[in-house]
Amino acid sequence: MAKIQIKPKRPIYPTPAALITSVDETGNPNIITLGEVFNISIINPVIIGIAIRKATYSHSLISKTREFVVNMPTVDIIDKVMVCGEVSGRRVDKFEKTGLTPLPAVRVSPPLIAECSINLECKVLGIQEIGDHDLFLGEVLVQHVEEEILDKNRKINFRKLNGFAFNLGEFWTFGERILT
Amino acid sequence: MAKIQIKPKRPIYPTPAALITSVDETGNPNIITLGEVFNISIINPVIIGIAIRKATYSHSLISKTREFVVNMPTVDIIDKVMVCGEVSGRRVDKFEKTGLTPLPAVRVSPPLIAECSINLECKVLGIQEIGDHDLFLGEVLVQHVEEEILDKNRKINFRKLNGFAFNLGEFWTFGERILT
Repeated sequence: MAKIQIKPKRPIYPTPAALITSVDETGNPNIITLGEVFNISIINPVIIGIAIRKATYSHSLISKTREFVVNMPTVDIIDKVMVCGEVSGRRVDKFEKTGLTPLPAVRVSPPLIAECSINLECKVLGIQEIGDHDLFLGEVLVQHVEEEILDKNRKINFRKLNGFAFNLGEFWTFGERILT
Repeated sequence: MAKIQIKPKRPIYPTPAALITSVDETGNPNIITLGEVFNISIINPVIIGIAIRKATYSHSLISKTREFVVNMPTVDIIDKVMVCGEVSGRRVDKFEKTGLTPLPAVRVSPPLIAECSINLECKVLGIQEIGDHDLFLGEVLVQHVEEEILDKNRKINFRKLNGFAFNLGEFWTFGERILT
């Protein structure tokens, strides 16, 4: 099979479509949709990365408060995921606009999103400029999951998550588990 | 729906299962399977991250040569993806063991894997310790794609890629495109 060269742009797939919550100095919450969310340190400690453009309101908020929550959405709320990626929190209250429900977190100020099946409370360990995005390193302090997605052994049942992927600019559901 | 707290471990999904190629000082190639591969800088420049444990042979090779290639596999070779994640290149020639085919790259020394539909030649910009993994930042110098996965407008046709995701420890195919 012949290979040809193309101009790269956001070439890695799949990535999550995660909703990141943050707050301003008076506690007003904001939401941004990001594909650039990833595991870096796996077990001890658990550190994730998120990459955000400097121009965004969330960049400004998380830089100041040094806290954020990662909320993993389901297919049911994909329209709200789109909205949170298209409008700026500088002008719009995205909780009000989408109808998503904020829940208090345990260790940080930004809220959990109730409709998301997994929520990760994170404390910023460092911020660095990498090309056209800034990398925020976040230690995961607390992980919340909906009880109904857990199996009897308290392991997450991936099928029950009803999640989706962001693949080279397109949203895709998952199909079948392979290599079981 | 009630939320409960669980102990986090590699909590973000989906991630890719990508094959990373590297070479030793005499040009002998190695392969490692990683889930921790991600976009950071999207357009200008295109910078990706990979997170590797210090103990691995690939960590040692890429630290010395400061070059690697990201190869995106298809479902057809998932058994080989597993092998490359289970054995060490210190003891085993993984190209020989798996039968995967090395192809010369254009700008770097590590080979492309012919059976992978997308290959990204990368130059290391920096290496930093982050918890239990080290983060390698790589600028994407060249992207190769199989001609047959491109549409007429030279856009990648995601369905033709036949890719898969690594989700909380499980391999999953993709289902349907949503929000088209």
